This record gives sequence, C-alpha cells and structure tokens, in this order.
Amino acid sequence: MTLEDAQREVHKYVSQFKMGYWAPLSNLARLIEEVGELARELNHLYGNKSKKPTEGEGHIADEIGDILFTLICIANSEDIDLTTSLKGVIDKYNHRDRDRWDPVE
Amino acid sequence: MTLEDAQREVHKYVSQFKMGYWAPLSNLARLIEEVGELARELNHLYGNKSKKPTEGEGHIADEIGDILFTLICIANSEDIDLTTSLKGVIDKYNHRDRDRWDPVE
Amino acid sequence: MTLEDAQREVHKYVSQFKMGYWAPLSNLARLIEEVGELARELNHLYGNKSKKPTEGEGHIADEIGDILFTLICIANSEDIDLTTSLKGVIDKYNHRDRDRWDPVE
Amino acid sequence: MTLEDAQREVHKYVSQFKMGYWAPLSNLARLIEEVGELARELNHLYGNKSKKPTEGEGHIADEIGDILFTLICIANSEDIDLTTSLKGVIDKYNHRDRDRWDPVE
Repeated sequence: MTLEDAQREVHKYVSQFKMGYWAPLSNLARLIEEVGELARELNHLYGNKSKKPTEGEGHIADEIGDILFTLICIANSEDIDLTTSLKGVIDKYNHRDRDRWDPVE
Repeated sequence: MTLEDAQREVHKYVSQFKMGYWAPLSNLARLIEEVGELARELNHLYGNKSKKPTEGEGHIADEIGDILFTLICIANSEDIDLTTSLKGVIDKYNHRDRDRWDPVE
Repeated sequence: MTLEDAQREVHKYVSQFKMGYWAPLSNLARLIEEVGELARELNHLYGNKSKKPTEGEGHIADEIGDILFTLICIANSEDIDLTTSLKGVIDKYNHRDRDRWDPVE
Repeated sequence: MTLEDAQREVHKYVSQFKMGYWAPLSNLARLIEEVGELARELNHLYGNKSKKPTEGEGHIADEIGDILFTLICIANSEDIDLTTSLKGVIDKYNHRDRDRWDPVE
C-alpha cells in the first residue's frame, strides 16, 4: 500500500458519510486523544505506570493505526501529499542534523 | 512510496547514527512536541490565535511530515507494520462505526 | 486552597508510596493521556465527534483535575513553585501581548 | 495565591480584551502547543534529544506556567472550580488506587 493509496482509502471511507471530514480543530482534538492512548500503552510497557487489574492488554499497533488514520484525515483535509511531506522531512534531517549525532563507524 | 518503503527509509536514516532509535518515552515526547507544532499552525489558521508579527508563515505540510516521521520511528522500534495497522483500523471503523454517521444518500 | 497547599497535598499523597514520583518522561506520558481524555470530552461537546451509545456522560471537571494533578507532580519533581510560575506567565502576557488583542473599550 | 485567586487573576487578564476566552477547541489546541513545549524541554533534560547549538536554555518553570494558565482558561470557560476538581481527584486516587502501589513502610 503506497502512502497515496492510504490517503485514497481514508478518503473513500470518509466520503461515505454526509459529514465528510471533521473541522480541523476537531480532527486535532481527535489526534490528541489517539496520541494519549498510545501514551498510556507506552507508559504501561516502558514507564512507571502499572496496569489496573481491570485493564486488558494494550495494543500499541492499533493505537499507532488510529493516529495514522487521523493524521491522514488532517492531511487530506488540507490537501497535503504525505509522500512529499515525508521526503521533505527526511531530506531536512539529512542536511540539518548531519553533524548532530555520532555516525556509526 | 509504499508504507513499507517509508518504514525502510526511516530505518536507513536512523541506522546511520550510533544512537539508533530513541527510547520509547523519548520518542513519545518528540511526537507530542511535533503535534504541538501542528496545533499551533492549525490554531493560527482556524482558531482564535493570531500570529505575533515575528512569526513566519506556518508550514502545515512540514509539521505533518515531522509527525509521520516520528510515528514511523515508534512503529519501527516496536516492530509494527504500518500497512497492517492502518488496514486494521479502517476495517474496525467500517464495522464498528457503520451506523454512527449518516450515509451519503 | 493555595497553589502551595495544592503542591503540598499532592506531595503528601505521593509520599505514601515507595515508588514516589514517576520518572519525568513517564509523568509526561501521563499528562498526555489526561490531556487526551479532556480532548475527547471537548470534542464531544464542541466538535464533530458524536458519542457512541456506550459512552457515558463526560466529566470535564474530572479531566481537568487529572491534568492539574499530573502537572503538580511534574512541578514538584522539578522543584518548581507554581505560584511563581503562574505570576511570571501573567506578567509576561501583560507585557508581551499588550498590543496583540483589541482592548475592551 | 489560592486556586480561586489564580482563576480570578486569569479572568481579569482575559477580560481586558474584546475577544474574551477563546473557543474551547482553540484553547485545547493551545494547551497541546504548551504541553509540546514542555515535552521538548523534558526530552532535552531526561531523554535522548540533544540540543541544537542554536537552542537556548529551556525554562521548564515557564512551560509549566503556560500550561497552567491555559488550563485555567479552559476551567474558567467551562465554569469549573479548580479547588473542587483537584480535591475530587486526590480523593479518587486515595480510594481507587489505595492498593495499587506499595506503601512506604
């Protein structure tokens, strides 16, 4: 699945409904909610938070999927091509941060 | 660029450096930082926050690229396949939320 | 209850347990989780997110209390006095943003 | 300064301006932005993120002050009394989590 396919799949899903894409700040609120759920799972696995006995197994893969879905909704709403964005970022890091970290020898 | 390519590209970038992937809660902190920057831009465009004269043009596409990059770092660290995750989410929404929104007629 | 009392109350609570304060990035993860829960409630009330039938009434006051509690944990861990911080911020806004918004006539 | 004073101080500040309180999802976006800035500082201090040479010293106390200010704006907008909220949370933790952590002997 290409990033372009992923954007198209999400668009197909959203287009089924009258409401269409949510308002930008509403999508952002949802992004925060999903990031918060990932935070809870990572904190259980790697931080100081122990599970309450009633809490089931976490599903980090699902939380990441939810974040990605919401991010794609925002990108689609703003007419942003994720492939271009991601390439731009990797390119930026390759130039800007070239000397920020020690290379593997 | 497929989602798999994207994960591989990020891995290639990260593997250049001795440090490798950051610790999970450190990556999470970075994800929050990047989401915060997107929040600032969306708030300028769609919310009540006016720009200070010293603030330049925002670049929503770049902020989304930064979030996607960080999300891929977390997925790679956790051995998560983004294609599977995203398909799972779309499938979940198609079943769980089938009657939650009004369909286009 | 003064801000100082609030910091002392939280300290008294945390000091009951062997673990004491969580590590900083673990507290941060928890802060995100709590902010995510507030985001969900605000999105239900003011955004495009409708409640699933299974979701009960939200409690914005509780979510704000959870965020405040976690923020105080971080402040206490870092030896930060909230009264000084808040006064500093209000002072900063009074000076920096003096001409950023239209005054009430 | 009591929590009630703090809420009153923020109200006095906001009431100077025609705009008054921001819309709820706009305040939430700002909360995320401020939490993102705290995340950056904590990541520099405790995580894997090294400072770029151009970045100055972070000010965790200021970031916490900014978060608290924004949280108070949300509480004021929603007519929420922070003292009651915080007491409710501490009470909840004292009951719910009584056996979740090992006590100091």
